Amino acid sequence: MPSVKTVTEDDREAIRKSVERWLEAGKKGDLATMLELLADDVLFIVPGQEPFGKQAFAAANKKQMQDMQMDATIDIKEIEVAGEWAWMRSFLNVTFTRDGKAAKHSGHILNIWQKNSAGRWVIKRDANFVKPEGA
Amino acid sequence: MPSVKTVTEDDREAIRKSVERWLEAGKKGDLATMLELLADDVLFIVPGQEPFGKQAFAAANKKQMQDMQMDATIDIKEIEVAGEWAWMRSFLNVTFTRDGKAAKHSGHILNIWQKNSAGRWVIKRDANFVKPEGA
Repeated sequence: MPSVKTVTEDDREAIRKSVERWLEAGKKGDLATMLELLADDVLFIVPGQEPFGKQAFAAANKKQMQDMQMDATIDIKEIEVAGEWAWMRSFLNVTFTRDGKAAKHSGHILNIWQKNSAGRWVIKRDANFVKPEGA
Repeated sequence: MPSVKTVTEDDREAIRKSVERWLEAGKKGDLATMLELLADDVLFIVPGQEPFGKQAFAAANKKQMQDMQMDATIDIKEIEVAGEWAWMRSFLNVTFTRDGKAAKHSGHILNIWQKNSAGRWVIKRDANFVKPEGA
């Protein structure tokens, strides 16, 4: 039987894998996989607008993915796991390319993750400070 | 022996009390109490600057408290507790008054709380979107 520490390490690793899947899906324009990694009642909290959910995220990304390519790297600063909940702090670098022109965005993110009934870690809350560099 | 549900409710109530203490201390300019409610390695994550810790918070608030009065109300949207960790989403309204002039700030906050070794809930991470209204 694995120790509690091992289980926590496994969960941490599972969350890291979910982050990788998320970024790979973003690069490929694979919205379906991105949506699988979101809780149904996810909320994105960002500057300058009201928090928005899964449907608004899907609509915005569908449009964005048609118009541009995305590449991203993430620096995961910390992950803490407690039962079915976890929180993660990271710094994200994103480059959006459209008609050969690249725009760099970056910023800090604080995420709440939840292990859903299927045992999969999904994003529950996303406090997101990513913005155009220099803005 | 209390059920798990009761313990969670107790923790939730303890966090609400910590929030009340925090706001009361802010109104009174009681920086010592505010600092007691912060983990030693707390990080504030805000737009437009690098995350900062307890010392920078203390320095900024000491200056601010000399210059103005603060009043605040908070709408706690949700609190989830898991062992020694909890997360909370809220909306904060703050009014700063200086020389009879009031400035209203408001915004969403996502907090990570930690129950420290003394059994007290303290703020570990604070993703804070509070800004001047209309800005």
